[in-house]
Amino acid sequence: MDAIAYLLGIDGGGTKTLVRLTSPQGQVLAQASGPGSALRIGAAQAWRVIGQTIDAAFAGAGLQRPADETLAVGIGIAGENVAQWSADFRAQAPAFGVLEIVNDGVATLLGAHGGAPGAIIAVGTGTIGLSLDLDGSRRVVDGWGFPSGDDGSGGWMGLRALHHAQLALDGRSHRGPLADAVLELCRSELPAEPARDERATLLDWLAQADQAAFARAARPVVAHAHDDVAARNILQAAAAEISRMIDTLDPAQCLPLALCGGLAAALQPYLERRQQARIVPPQADAVDGALLLVRRALQPKETPA
Amino acid sequence: MDAIAYLLGIDGGGTKTLVRLTSPQGQVLAQASGPGSALRIGAAQAWRVIGQTIDAAFAGAGLQRPADETLAVGIGIAGENVAQWSADFRAQAPAFGVLEIVNDGVATLLGAHGGAPGAIIAVGTGTIGLSLDLDGSRRVVDGWGFPSGDDGSGGWMGLRALHHAQLALDGRSHRGPLADAVLELCRSELPAEPARDERATLLDWLAQADQAAFARAARPVVAHAHDDVAARNILQAAAAEISRMIDTLDPAQCLPLALCGGLAAALQPYLERRQQARIVPPQADAVDGALLLVRRALQPKETPA
Repeated sequence: MDAIAYLLGIDGGGTKTLVRLTSPQGQVLAQASGPGSALRIGAAQAWRVIGQTIDAAFAGAGLQRPADETLAVGIGIAGENVAQWSADFRAQAPAFGVLEIVNDGVATLLGAHGGAPGAIIAVGTGTIGLSLDLDGSRRVVDGWGFPSGDDGSGGWMGLRALHHAQLALDGRSHRGPLADAVLELCRSELPAEPARDERATLLDWLAQADQAAFARAARPVVAHAHDDVAARNILQAAAAEISRMIDTLDPAQCLPLALCGGLAAALQPYLERRQQARIVPPQADAVDGALLLVRRALQPKETPA
Repeated sequence: MDAIAYLLGIDGGGTKTLVRLTSPQGQVLAQASGPGSALRIGAAQAWRVIGQTIDAAFAGAGLQRPADETLAVGIGIAGENVAQWSADFRAQAPAFGVLEIVNDGVATLLGAHGGAPGAIIAVGTGTIGLSLDLDGSRRVVDGWGFPSGDDGSGGWMGLRALHHAQLALDGRSHRGPLADAVLELCRSELPAEPARDERATLLDWLAQADQAAFARAARPVVAHAHDDVAARNILQAAAAEISRMIDTLDPAQCLPLALCGGLAAALQPYLERRQQARIVPPQADAVDGALLLVRRALQPKETPA
């Protein structure tokens, strides 16, 4: 194991890939981010994004990237819970000296509580809740993916924002600032030509929209919670889903609970007061959780007590 | 135009393609069905399915398929309302003697009321509502597609059935007959190997599920409306969406209204009583609507009165 030159922690989400490069002693040398690498995009494409983001981290540190065998890599990646995707991803892995792969939610849990018992809800492009109980038992809620699951996530909110815009456009509900903002988002993401009416704008955008695209449509929901009742209803409904996950993960209400991910701050004020009072800030992020896995893998095996 | 040997009416839906072959005088010679040809699958694949189903219709009539130039073809096809999909589909069309292409909802409207004023809700894999008013004005509701729209459709119900199964599996809600039936459906549609636990069964099925797959999951919803409260809630919510469409299409409540598509019969009992009382049976189906278009195109042009 003394051939390991660098540790790499990687968080592969639906929208963003984050790589942190450290020395074997844990000193952070550089960090880089790239586009999403959730396994839904396919193992080959996920590895391409991860490889390029690793390159960017070494470049950022002003270092030559060494042979794969000298790298110890921990990856928390979205979609790892789908058996086929996980098998494809592992089969196509480079020959790293050490490689630990877990679901991105597991990496978030490890980072948030330093590997100790606790619960997390990670709510970003998708949603998953995980807990490690005092007796070592684990629970998981959601993480079912888009479009049927990932309740309360960016993709989930964006799906509802688009639905609201659809109702507003064809006269089934009142048209307010949220519908206008959703249309503007769609317009901004389409090629300028040809000129389209509003219905065609939505239809053309929807025809190519994936989970990440819907997650972008969560931004107008958050932005208009103060001046659009439909937006506020979507945020409140998302928070209600998160509340239900918290109660399912930790019925005894005794574990430290961290709310993680890009939408945590927007959702927290809408949670039930008793739940808000329990929330602790995460000790570290999913990248650090992935690095924790790597350090564990590098430790000499101890005989269990 | 005297070179036209046969008329063909085609209904291209998300799950099924229906072709009816008639003589120039309208005598039905044969009918054939194939898999879905909704434009979401791509223009080339849609034309492939349509071509094969046309072949099957000629074979069923015991006829040699003649040159494309001698065929007059009317097509109502799902996804025609997406500009790019429609353009691709038209660009790749065979050189039929006559070719009329409309959205499948338009063909359903034409068939249901023989081209006269009226309203329809077509609810199958997707949902669209259309009306032609007495003054010639037209309205459309929904038809926004999966997963954000097509409210009340098979895809819409199936999405909610899967969501319910997810909640039941991770302990967020009660597990009843619907969740069991959804799991059984997923298990039956996956390769027998490898053996999977219930969570993996759902995740593997979800990882490859498209709109048509979710629409298949509407069947357990209908089947368990009598013995599962979650199933009944989904059906009732679907009917509430259909009710809202009816009121938006025809606020004056004066048009004949036909409820069409594979889920019409299951939803009708859940509509508001005042709406049920207005429903008339469709005069004919979307294939006949497409044939009506063809006959109109073949008629000598009249000077408008």
